[in-house]
Amino acid sequence: MNTPEAVVGVGADLLADAVEAQAVPVTRVDWRPPMEGTESDLAAVAADPRRPEANARALSAMLEVTATLVDVVPAAEALGLEPGQFLHAGPPIEWARASGPLRGALMGGAALEGLVEDPDEAVALFESGTSVSLEPCHHRSTVGPMAGVVTPSMWLWVLEDPASGRRTYCSLNEGLGKVLRYGAYGPEVLTRLRWMGDVLGPLLQRSVRDTVASSGPVDVTGILTQMLQMGDEAHNRNRAGTLMLLRDLSPAMVTSGYDAADVAQALRFVGGNDHFFLNLAMPACKLALDAARGIEGSTMVVAMARNGTDFGIQVAGTGDEWFTGPAQLADGLFLGDYGPDDANPDIGDSAITETAGIGGFAMATAPAIVRFVGGSVPDALATTRRMHEITLGENPRWSVPVLEFQGTPTGIDVTKVCRTGILPQINTGMAGAVAGVGQVGAGLVTPPAEIFPQALAALAQAVPGRSL
Amino acid sequence: MNTPEAVVGVGADLLADAVEAQAVPVTRVDWRPPMEGTESDLAAVAADPRRPEANARALSAMLEVTATLVDVVPAAEALGLEPGQFLHAGPPIEWARASGPLRGALMGGAALEGLVEDPDEAVALFESGTSVSLEPCHHRSTVGPMAGVVTPSMWLWVLEDPASGRRTYCSLNEGLGKVLRYGAYGPEVLTRLRWMGDVLGPLLQRSVRDTVASSGPVDVTGILTQMLQMGDEAHNRNRAGTLMLLRDLSPAMVTSGYDAADVAQALRFVGGNDHFFLNLAMPACKLALDAARGIEGSTMVVAMARNGTDFGIQVAGTGDEWFTGPAQLADGLFLGDYGPDDANPDIGDSAITETAGIGGFAMATAPAIVRFVGGSVPDALATTRRMHEITLGENPRWSVPVLEFQGTPTGIDVTKVCRTGILPQINTGMAGAVAGVGQVGAGLVTPPAEIFPQALAALAQAVPGRSL
Repeated sequence: MNTPEAVVGVGADLLADAVEAQAVPVTRVDWRPPMEGTESDLAAVAADPRRPEANARALSAMLEVTATLVDVVPAAEALGLEPGQFLHAGPPIEWARASGPLRGALMGGAALEGLVEDPDEAVALFESGTSVSLEPCHHRSTVGPMAGVVTPSMWLWVLEDPASGRRTYCSLNEGLGKVLRYGAYGPEVLTRLRWMGDVLGPLLQRSVRDTVASSGPVDVTGILTQMLQMGDEAHNRNRAGTLMLLRDLSPAMVTSGYDAADVAQALRFVGGNDHFFLNLAMPACKLALDAARGIEGSTMVVAMARNGTDFGIQVAGTGDEWFTGPAQLADGLFLGDYGPDDANPDIGDSAITETAGIGGFAMATAPAIVRFVGGSVPDALATTRRMHEITLGENPRWSVPVLEFQGTPTGIDVTKVCRTGILPQINTGMAGAVAGVGQVGAGLVTPPAEIFPQALAALAQAVPGRSL
Repeated sequence: MNTPEAVVGVGADLLADAVEAQAVPVTRVDWRPPMEGTESDLAAVAADPRRPEANARALSAMLEVTATLVDVVPAAEALGLEPGQFLHAGPPIEWARASGPLRGALMGGAALEGLVEDPDEAVALFESGTSVSLEPCHHRSTVGPMAGVVTPSMWLWVLEDPASGRRTYCSLNEGLGKVLRYGAYGPEVLTRLRWMGDVLGPLLQRSVRDTVASSGPVDVTGILTQMLQMGDEAHNRNRAGTLMLLRDLSPAMVTSGYDAADVAQALRFVGGNDHFFLNLAMPACKLALDAARGIEGSTMVVAMARNGTDFGIQVAGTGDEWFTGPAQLADGLFLGDYGPDDANPDIGDSAITETAGIGGFAMATAPAIVRFVGGSVPDALATTRRMHEITLGENPRWSVPVLEFQGTPTGIDVTKVCRTGILPQINTGMAGAVAGVGQVGAGLVTPPAEIFPQALAALAQAVPGRSL
C-alpha cells in the first residue's frame, strides 16, 4: 500500500492523529452527527423543493431592510397599550411560571403606572390576574432587553424601514446594575424611570423629531455598520454605538429649547451608559428579521427570545408558532460577591441580535468583550467562524475587519443546527434569580438544544405532500 | 549522521526549506544582519554599563506619565508666541528648503494673522525673512500634525501631567481635505480657521475650564486606553476618541452660556471630524516621551518628526540633537484622481504617536484602518508584532484585545533598529506636493534608514571612556 499524499479527517480525532503521526498532511473537518432523532425530518425538509428559493428570499428580505430612527413616543400612544397591560420579553408566559426577575420588573412596572403604591402589593394583583394582562413584546412589534417589561407610560424608540413603512419599538435603556429590566424595583429604580418618563423621553422626542426635520432620520443600520468596526458586537458592547447616537442627536438636544441643565443631565446619563444603544440595535434587528416572517418553506429562524423560564424561537416557514424549551444558565463573570447560585436562567429579547448575525455571532470583532462576558480572545474569534456553519449567508453591510472584512454570519438555519448539532452562541447579561436583586453578571449561553428538532418537525410537517 | 530532532532556521530561508522538506520540524527566526557599518558602534553602545538601567528608567518615566486636558488657550498666551513667529512640524528648517505643504500652511498662517492680505503675498515675506521666524513645534513643548503651523492667534489644547505639572500643547484639528495643515490656504480654509478662533476656541476654553472645575481634568490617557479597544490606533483612526471627547465635554458646552446655535454648530463640527482627537493624542504622547529626555546612556527614541523635507529623530541619551535624513514618500491610497506623483514626502509631528507605541505600532487593534492607509489586515497584525522587535517594552495601560490584550510595543531602541534593520512603521496622511492643494491621500511610510546609525554613532561617542 502506498502512503496517501493527503488525508481529510472527519469527526473523531483518533484516526487523524494516527495518520498525522506518520507525517501525512491532515485536513481536519469539524463534523458531528445530526441531533438525535432528526434524520427523517431532515430528509423530509431537504426534499422540500420550496426550500432553497424560500431561504434565499428570507435572507435577502432581511438584508434589504434598513432601520431608521424616526420618533420617540410613549407606549400608550405607539402601541395603544392600556393601563394594566404589560409587555414582557420572550415567548408567552403567565405569572405563575414567571421567573424572579420578570416578576420583579412587573411589580416595579405596576408601581410606576400607579396601579399599586408599593411594588410588593403588586404580587396579589398579578396573582389574581383580573385587572392585568401579560403579552410578549414580540407580539406587538416590540423587543425588550432582559425582563423586557413595557408599560403604557414608558417612552419607546420608533424605528422604521423606509422602503416598507414597517415599524418596530423598544424602551429606553436604564443602565446596568439595579434597574427594572434586571428585576430590581427599589425606590432608586422608580425614581430613575420617572425622570426618564418626565425629562428624557420628551427631550429625546423633540430632538429626534427636529433631527428628522432638519437632516432626516438617524441611520441605525449605518451606526451598526460602524460599530462593528469599533469593537462593539451590539449586544453586550454598545459603546461606540451609544457615542454615535449622542453625536447624531446632541446638536438637536442643544437647540430643543429644553432647559440647559436638563439637556446636560441627559447627555451625562446617555454618555455614562455604554449599553444605551442596545435598545436601538435590538429593534433594528427585529425590523430586519420581521421582513422574513411567513415565508413558506424557509427554515430560517426569525426570533430567539427568553422570558427567564422558557427559551423560544420562531421560524420563517412556521408562522407565529413558538418552539420552546427551558432557558439555560449562562456561564460567565459575576459582579461583586454574586456567583452562579444567584443567577436566573437566560432572559430577554436581546437574542434578536444573534438572530440577526451580531451579538455572540460577531464576537470576533469585539474581542475586548471577553472581559465582560468571560471566555478568551481565541474563543471569540472561533465563535464567529463557527456560526458560519449554521447560517444561510453573510451580511455584506456588517463586516468584521479582523476576519478580513468577512460579513457577519447571518440567518440561522434550523436544518444546519440539527445537522451539525452546533447551537447558536448568545452572550448575555445575567439577572439575579430573586425578584428585586438586579444584575448579577454577564456570560455566554446557548438555547436548549431540543427546540431546533421541534421546529424541524413542524417544518417537515408543512412540506407539501408529506402532511397529506 | 543522525537526522536532527528539530532545527532552528535563522536568516536565509533556503536551508530551512531544505530541512523542512525532510520532515524535520523547523522554527524560523526573523533574523537580519545589522545595518551596514554599525558593528563597532553597536559594540561600543552594548558595552556601555549605563545602558540597561538608563533604558529601564526612560521607559518607566514615559509609562508613568498621565496626560490630562486642563485648558484651551491661544498660542500667544500659552507659548508667548508673537506676531511673525511661526511654529512648524519636524526638525528645524528654513523657507528656502521648505516643502510645498509647509509653505502653503505658512502662507495661510500669515494671512490668518493679518501679516498679509492675500496668502500669495506672504511668499516675499518669508523669502526676505526679516519680520518672520520659523521654529519647530517640538522646541516649544508643542506638536503639530502635517505642516504643524502654529500662529499666535490659534487656540491650543493644554495637556498636563498632574504628577510633574509639565505641559504640552497642540492646535485644534480642522478636519480633512482642504485644510491648512495639508498646505491648503484658500478662502474656505481661512474662514474655517477664523470660526475656530472666534467661536470654537473660546467655547472649548469655557467648557474645559467648567469641566475641570466640576469634575476634574479630562483623562486623555484614559481615553487613549479605551480607544485602543474600539478600533482606533490614535494616529489615522481617532473615531472613538473623538466621540469620547464629545461625551466628556458636551455637558459643559451645553451649560457654557454660549448661544445654543453656536454650541450645536461646534458639536456638529467635532462630531463630523473623525480625526479631531488626533490633536489630543499627539500632545499626550509628547508629554509622556518628554519625561524620558536627557537620560544619559539611554538609546530610546523620544521624538520622530518630519517637516516635509527632512525626517528627524531625537534620542533620550543625546539631548536635543536632531538626527535627520530625507523624508520618504508614503505608499498608500489616494483621494479622487490624485496619484503618487501628486504627493509630498512625509510630513508632520504626528509620528510622535508611533514613538509612543500607538499609531502604526498599534495597527493590529485597528484593522479597519487598512481601508484608509492601504495594506492588508494580516499586514496590520504583523506590523504590531514586528514592532515588538525594536522596542524596549510594552505599555501595560494600552493593550490590544485581538493580541490577547498584549501591551503596545513601546520605546523604540536605536540599537535594536540598527541590529535588526527593522524600521519603525508609521501610518500617515499625505499632503499634496504643491502649496495650496491640501490632502491627496493616506498611506504607510518609514523613516530614512540612515538616521538610526547616525544616532547610534552619537550614542557611541557619548559612552564614557570611548570619547576620551
